[in-house]
Amino acid sequence: MVKQERAARTRHALIQAAAAVFAEDGFTPASLSTISRRAGVSNGALHFHFASKHALAEAVTAEAARTVRCITDRAQEGQAHSLQCVVDATHELMSRLADDIVLRAGFELAALPARRRESSLRTQWQHWVEDSFRRAEHSGSLAHGVSWADGARVVVAATAGFEVLGGGDVSWLSRPSVTRLWEVLLPRLAGRAGLEALVCAGSPPPPGPPAREHPALEHPSRAHPAQEPPVQTRPAQ
Amino acid sequence: MVKQERAARTRHALIQAAAAVFAEDGFTPASLSTISRRAGVSNGALHFHFASKHALAEAVTAEAARTVRCITDRAQEGQAHSLQCVVDATHELMSRLADDIVLRAGFELAALPARRRESSLRTQWQHWVEDSFRRAEHSGSLAHGVSWADGARVVVAATAGFEVLGGGDVSWLSRPSVTRLWEVLLPRLAGRAGLEALVCAGSPPPPGPPAREHPALEHPSRAHPAQEPPVQTRPAQ
Repeated sequence: MVKQERAARTRHALIQAAAAVFAEDGFTPASLSTISRRAGVSNGALHFHFASKHALAEAVTAEAARTVRCITDRAQEGQAHSLQCVVDATHELMSRLADDIVLRAGFELAALPARRRESSLRTQWQHWVEDSFRRAEHSGSLAHGVSWADGARVVVAATAGFEVLGGGDVSWLSRPSVTRLWEVLLPRLAGRAGLEALVCAGSPPPPGPPAREHPALEHPSRAHPAQEPPVQTRPAQ
Repeated sequence: MVKQERAARTRHALIQAAAAVFAEDGFTPASLSTISRRAGVSNGALHFHFASKHALAEAVTAEAARTVRCITDRAQEGQAHSLQCVVDATHELMSRLADDIVLRAGFELAALPARRRESSLRTQWQHWVEDSFRRAEHSGSLAHGVSWADGARVVVAATAGFEVLGGGDVSWLSRPSVTRLWEVLLPRLAGRAGLEALVCAGSPPPPGPPAREHPALEHPSRAHPAQEPPVQTRPAQ
């Protein structure tokens, strides 16, 4: 293994270990020696890569932010309907929060009183949801009487709630749970004309071979489409 | 001052000081000497009342749970419509989260990985919302096609989101912000027959002299009804 590759692997292992220790012990009690031991590297190697525990927290947050960006970019790929983008991104975000320790730790670090103002992770998600709702309003896809700001507020709050409640009870993050959220919300948020085309359980897999741009973000329903048939929205009341 | 009264005051001051220090420093870094200094009592007095920092956290959580119970009891007093009870309780909960340091600390302690399973504060709120939605379904007040479980899930998630996001940006907790949440949700959750009677901004003050049962929970719009006229729900789409 060349030197650079080994350094990158060590850095990756340290970020994973830090996220796991922050999640189990909390950020403040987490010790650097526990993190280096968990990563299987020496204290010296940890200090070579990260000057402090705060630097490790920054790296965890940056990695989580990159994942959120991948999720939102991927949701927009080839998807014209902005509300469906938000539905798809929400499914992907919750699914990843259930099994990606770095993403989970990134959001939990963002909630700490001491780091709340520094971290942009929640803001990044909020801005993307707001931009999507602005596009939906611009294209006339929102229900009459619902502004982009009011629609986005409900979705940002509900997804923050799912994220936090999912930290204690992972069933909040399941695909059926997120689907039922959208079954309640979409008939209120989407205009009648476009509602029938929206899929609360997330977009079905695209035709042809699976996309390979983001192999780390393999979509469960794309990998095993037969396991979970898409649930259509119920008609508006 | 008699001895018992003095002891109760010291205990109260210690719980307030602990909540403030937990909120500012985080639970783990918070030191008992900082808490006793902030409460204006000796370390000995602190240890007389609380054997450990965990005992203080338990007391903060119990006090927060009592406040949540007062809020939900009060919302149900004389209010026949279960969905209006939930609207009113949500306004009161968010308003109190903005200025009651013990309630805020109670919810933040409940979110800590180490205490997540012990604390019943979020569960207490969730169960009350679920019971209210069950009553609404039983009385035929929910919109056709919306189950009590799905309605409650959205409200529990959205209120958890408001609580967490409000920790970083207090504008989430304002009455207009919570009102706009209900302007989106109620036309989807409530049956058409009862929708017109529901007030997204919270119930108007009852006739006659203001109730005195829970003076600590004075409702801003009851105290100054002229400042914020109730905003009616928009008609369903």
